[in-house]
Amino acid sequence: MKMNKIRSAEIICVGTELLLGQIINTNAAWLARELSLLGIYSYYQTVVGDNAERLTDMLKTATGRSDLIILTGGLGPTQDDLTMATVAAFAGRPMLLHQESQEAIAARFQLMHQRHVPSNNWKQAMMPEGALVLPNKNGTAPGAMLTIPTSDNRAVTLVMLPGPPSEMQPMFSESVRPQLVKCTTTRLKHCFVRMIGIGESAAESRLLDLISSQTNPTVAPYAAEGEVMFRVTQSLGQDEKNNDKTAAVISEIQKRLGDHIYEIGTRSLPEVVKDLLTERGLTVSFAESCTGGMISAALTDIPGASTSFTGCMVAYDKQVKIQQLHVPETVIQDHGEVSEACARAMATGCRDVFNTTYSLAVTGLAGSSGGSAEKPVGLIWLAVAGPKEVVTRQLQLTGSRSRIRRVTVLQALDFLRRQVLT
Amino acid sequence: MKMNKIRSAEIICVGTELLLGQIINTNAAWLARELSLLGIYSYYQTVVGDNAERLTDMLKTATGRSDLIILTGGLGPTQDDLTMATVAAFAGRPMLLHQESQEAIAARFQLMHQRHVPSNNWKQAMMPEGALVLPNKNGTAPGAMLTIPTSDNRAVTLVMLPGPPSEMQPMFSESVRPQLVKCTTTRLKHCFVRMIGIGESAAESRLLDLISSQTNPTVAPYAAEGEVMFRVTQSLGQDEKNNDKTAAVISEIQKRLGDHIYEIGTRSLPEVVKDLLTERGLTVSFAESCTGGMISAALTDIPGASTSFTGCMVAYDKQVKIQQLHVPETVIQDHGEVSEACARAMATGCRDVFNTTYSLAVTGLAGSSGGSAEKPVGLIWLAVAGPKEVVTRQLQLTGSRSRIRRVTVLQALDFLRRQVLT
Repeated sequence: MKMNKIRSAEIICVGTELLLGQIINTNAAWLARELSLLGIYSYYQTVVGDNAERLTDMLKTATGRSDLIILTGGLGPTQDDLTMATVAAFAGRPMLLHQESQEAIAARFQLMHQRHVPSNNWKQAMMPEGALVLPNKNGTAPGAMLTIPTSDNRAVTLVMLPGPPSEMQPMFSESVRPQLVKCTTTRLKHCFVRMIGIGESAAESRLLDLISSQTNPTVAPYAAEGEVMFRVTQSLGQDEKNNDKTAAVISEIQKRLGDHIYEIGTRSLPEVVKDLLTERGLTVSFAESCTGGMISAALTDIPGASTSFTGCMVAYDKQVKIQQLHVPETVIQDHGEVSEACARAMATGCRDVFNTTYSLAVTGLAGSSGGSAEKPVGLIWLAVAGPKEVVTRQLQLTGSRSRIRRVTVLQALDFLRRQVLT
Repeated sequence: MKMNKIRSAEIICVGTELLLGQIINTNAAWLARELSLLGIYSYYQTVVGDNAERLTDMLKTATGRSDLIILTGGLGPTQDDLTMATVAAFAGRPMLLHQESQEAIAARFQLMHQRHVPSNNWKQAMMPEGALVLPNKNGTAPGAMLTIPTSDNRAVTLVMLPGPPSEMQPMFSESVRPQLVKCTTTRLKHCFVRMIGIGESAAESRLLDLISSQTNPTVAPYAAEGEVMFRVTQSLGQDEKNNDKTAAVISEIQKRLGDHIYEIGTRSLPEVVKDLLTERGLTVSFAESCTGGMISAALTDIPGASTSFTGCMVAYDKQVKIQQLHVPETVIQDHGEVSEACARAMATGCRDVFNTTYSLAVTGLAGSSGGSAEKPVGLIWLAVAGPKEVVTRQLQLTGSRSRIRRVTVLQALDFLRRQVLT
């Protein structure tokens, strides 16, 4: 597909449920981030309903001011899913049946053991003439890319993606990004420095001079819950040799914040922990109370976790702590379930039960109820039992129940990582 | 302030950090929901950067098509905060110093024990001539409401609100909503029907006549991963008594899809399961393999889960299944870990270990590797052990590893729900 040079982009999210505020629009932010990583700046984000007339108006406006327009949503099988047909009509292209997509849809329903494909699903195999069809590995709706001329003799590329993030994100990463890379005017080289155990403003103040003075590469904070991330971005001319200006800046950041950094690159904390354990041939198990399985879920979200992770005991009930993790009843009587002693006993018991090199235990008060003056909501005890010793750590977190739980997962995995490294 | 009748609205969120995807736009969804509850339908949501020229273009477009325009963001003290000045210029109104706002700002800094007010904060007391000023109890930036005539002799109301939700939401509720109520023509009443175990298009085809013929209330599908949702919306005249036209439609939907419906209302599936167990005084435990603790995490995300949920064994490793859940080694030798027999044994063992009324077990292949022709990725076995019997169910899911895991969680919880209900 012949494409235009892309300087400016905009994002159009189609869906009446967005206009009614029934779901929060996370696609626009995700796509905006991905585009900015490619050096493409998006000047507008628009949400429009499943309405052909208003979507057509939007396409007129957008094609008049942007080189790239990414649309999400409205590719479903239902009557009000009309993005593909509206774009085709706007571009003056007929809708043609796309053989492979038709077969993919049939295969998908067969996989789901549904012999009969609902007739309206076939609509999802209709594509604008001349479009590059983007396969959907996670749903029935394929996407499409179409480059068309504008009235003022430019070329505009339209990208139609499905609405569900679980379908949209992999489709963008696998099929759209590789196309866009060819069309950007500058190449950006990003390096992420990810850290835990320091506040954003504290970290920023230590890098203030770099953030304000650096021009190439630039250093910018990057919002992320429960951790702090900085993006070091070097821009390379299209043909410029890959001369690395980033390394020096990175090592300066390491000099100032090294102790907090868990990753220089793109791996998430669970990935880093999983890789560390695998490299060293270590095994791990968890004993979770207030996090209720979230730490285990986070680690097993990484393919290949099974090489180091054996199992987890979610000990939500006191009796489970006593009977399954062999926490002495006296410990709970004397100190309570949310205590250093209980966390320590949970980790030790967990290590025996699962027979692993390390065991991580978490007990705390996630809220919203159950707090006291002495033990407020947000009080968390972590313990790691290893070959040499059992170490513990106290956290005092703030925010909603879900936030406290999510931040605890990160803090706990980082605590485990530090113990493995010492 | 004399205001126009409001039929259509749109929301404009101003902020470069939104365009870069550094923060997710929750304001648009929150405002859209508030407006729809007032019977004001918003046809567009736009995000534009802190840029006077592009914001002015946006205002031209928006005032041309909507009766009400709500802007959020760009009311801060810094140089790039230019929403108020841009709107004033667009409306041809001079900016005047607003005495009370100036005093409020001074008082606020005194509260923060800062004697000296930064000079650029005074800018926040400058308001467009003729605007209704909206006090800010949670920040320094007051908002404003301004009704102006359009070129086509309509009147358009512009509302400027601060960006932080903690300031924007109370300002809307306390100062804006009371004004809008006077100008709306209808009120809307929404009801949601949530179901699992049926595809979106299959469900819709059974309701096609309702979706297409119903005018009040309207029935519309609503996208959600792993489940299907329909929204039933009744519009009530301003003075109309709350005569319920919704109930009849709901019961018609129940007649056609009742078996798949798990909730008529707003509760999520984990909430429904937790409430069901609590009401009946039942306890539950889980044995998770491929979901790695996600089911347990989902249930414990609901406050009060502890009354019915005791614990979970994440048996990721074969030995854990054998030693902790007492799955006979022969079962695994003969049938493998991903098999009906293994799921059945896991559920039975789990029920003994945790001594609960019900136990739910899950074992399967989430991918991305490990699949075979006989046992493809996406093959999942569920088992529920209860007081009377052990029942099993097979799933064949498609998509990414994370999608397969997320959908399995919903299917497993629904399977448990159905067993409890039988």
